[in-house]
Amino acid sequence: MKKIDVKECALLLKEFDNYLILTHRNPDGDTLGSAFALKRTLDKMGKKSFVKCVDPMHHKYSYLWNGVDNNDFTFDKIIAVDVADKKLLGESFEKEYGDNIWLCIDHHLSNREYAENLLLEDKAAAAVVIYEVICELGVEITPEIASCVYTGLATDTGCFMFSNTTPTVHRIAADVMEKGADYVNINRLMFETKSLSYLRLEQMAVSSIESYFDGKCAIMTITRKMFEESGSSSTECDGIAALPRKIEGVKIGITIRERHNGSYKVSLRTVEPYDAAKICGKLGGGGHHAAAGCEFECSLDEVKATLLEVIKAEF
Amino acid sequence: MKKIDVKECALLLKEFDNYLILTHRNPDGDTLGSAFALKRTLDKMGKKSFVKCVDPMHHKYSYLWNGVDNNDFTFDKIIAVDVADKKLLGESFEKEYGDNIWLCIDHHLSNREYAENLLLEDKAAAAVVIYEVICELGVEITPEIASCVYTGLATDTGCFMFSNTTPTVHRIAADVMEKGADYVNINRLMFETKSLSYLRLEQMAVSSIESYFDGKCAIMTITRKMFEESGSSSTECDGIAALPRKIEGVKIGITIRERHNGSYKVSLRTVEPYDAAKICGKLGGGGHHAAAGCEFECSLDEVKATLLEVIKAEF
Repeated sequence: MKKIDVKECALLLKEFDNYLILTHRNPDGDTLGSAFALKRTLDKMGKKSFVKCVDPMHHKYSYLWNGVDNNDFTFDKIIAVDVADKKLLGESFEKEYGDNIWLCIDHHLSNREYAENLLLEDKAAAAVVIYEVICELGVEITPEIASCVYTGLATDTGCFMFSNTTPTVHRIAADVMEKGADYVNINRLMFETKSLSYLRLEQMAVSSIESYFDGKCAIMTITRKMFEESGSSSTECDGIAALPRKIEGVKIGITIRERHNGSYKVSLRTVEPYDAAKICGKLGGGGHHAAAGCEFECSLDEVKATLLEVIKAEF
Repeated sequence: MKKIDVKECALLLKEFDNYLILTHRNPDGDTLGSAFALKRTLDKMGKKSFVKCVDPMHHKYSYLWNGVDNNDFTFDKIIAVDVADKKLLGESFEKEYGDNIWLCIDHHLSNREYAENLLLEDKAAAAVVIYEVICELGVEITPEIASCVYTGLATDTGCFMFSNTTPTVHRIAADVMEKGADYVNINRLMFETKSLSYLRLEQMAVSSIESYFDGKCAIMTITRKMFEESGSSSTECDGIAALPRKIEGVKIGITIRERHNGSYKVSLRTVEPYDAAKICGKLGGGGHHAAAGCEFECSLDEVKATLLEVIKAEF
């Protein structure tokens, strides 16, 4: 359990020949892009490796592993990429691999240091850390590796829109674009494609929006009926909670989502200086400054009344 | 009417002391960002200038001119920024200034060369050209100039998502971010903020979407009634025509918009290899490979039937 730097990480990777690379559960573009960038780099070094995740990898990411041999075999060491905590491997993987992780490559402040640890916590994406490791290894960045790195950068920064985007992120994007990253298709796939059922859910959700406190607070409600009628699955609507805050003038955007058991999950998104974590803290929840959540077990009307009572004090 | 390079442009700008800077009509983030970056640079050089546009500048861009003196006065020379054709100044400005434009700084392939012409037609934004001129002039890029340049870059590339984004664009973004561009607030303002009336219009438009040819073609209809009921203005929904093509599996996305006079404006957006310009050409319209349009004067049902007949041949 030692903190290591990029140089030490590169030396470690040279030591063994057969690796298992693990991503976090509910795999996103950064954990998958980083894992396959590393796998493709190890391939170029003449080593063997394969990538595994406890959950299925969405087919939209298939270009990341296109043309590589990802079959499993007897490995020497386990590497976890973009996994801040062993728990994030998912229950069965934590049980199976959790105690034997040799190396962790990550960028989360919340990292729990459960292995030899290359942690660059000021970086926007794990892909930035992987890029630095590849450069240190001196392996040529092929167009395929470039596309993997680009995917991590672009997805973790909302296509360079979120506040975690740094000059370094833009410079690495420029470099991997020059090295052949298929950014036009990746951007279309990641940011421009929505399912019709998701669009229908969004439409129903928008029609539910209510405005309070002179438009400074907006509440959007997503019922189980909307999921059923639109045919949308909950997995494809992770981003929908960002919607109410996008409305002009809204400082506190609230999304109330009805759960299967009749309880309600509430997501808050705020604009400076409003503190989502503080507000949700008063309601038994928590989170970050700009994004937090809490839960309720009561009627929808009671959920709204309770929220509005707490938020009233903010304005 | 001479083509000039960045060095010659910088020398020209040093020659006079009082400038009028013109933007194109319906001003967007690139023409305004470029114009105010140039104005602020001229300010730093001890020269006087002011920016004018035939149409009002939207208040969301007000940080571009915040703190500068933009009053008019007697100028020596006129500079047009991001204006490919004198006609794009707008009718009254073309009449008033069109014959006296001294210098044009632009990035459009379609540029008509109506003045001393600094044209870098491979650049994603006029702001790229302006940035190169500022560097050549050796003027320090202040945080305010940096924000103006960033605005042009980000808005003309859809926040680095469109296919016109280049490594150069990312590198300049990195540089102006380091020089103090307020990119967090600019991104929020430009890409995250929607009016509630626009969201309502979008919701109605989505509910109108019809799928054809196994989901490869989607038709969305926006009626005048939807504008009236949502309260949205046509000026804020320029991007809505991109929506049908965003649906998973759609190759040809069509938006039909009802006009005041009862005619219909049709916008086509296509994915490779489908050619929007070719399809619209058959219907008396035209445009680009991925985005084109045409017009109809008949009933909505006839519009759809005619479109589907032509598109049938594509699949």
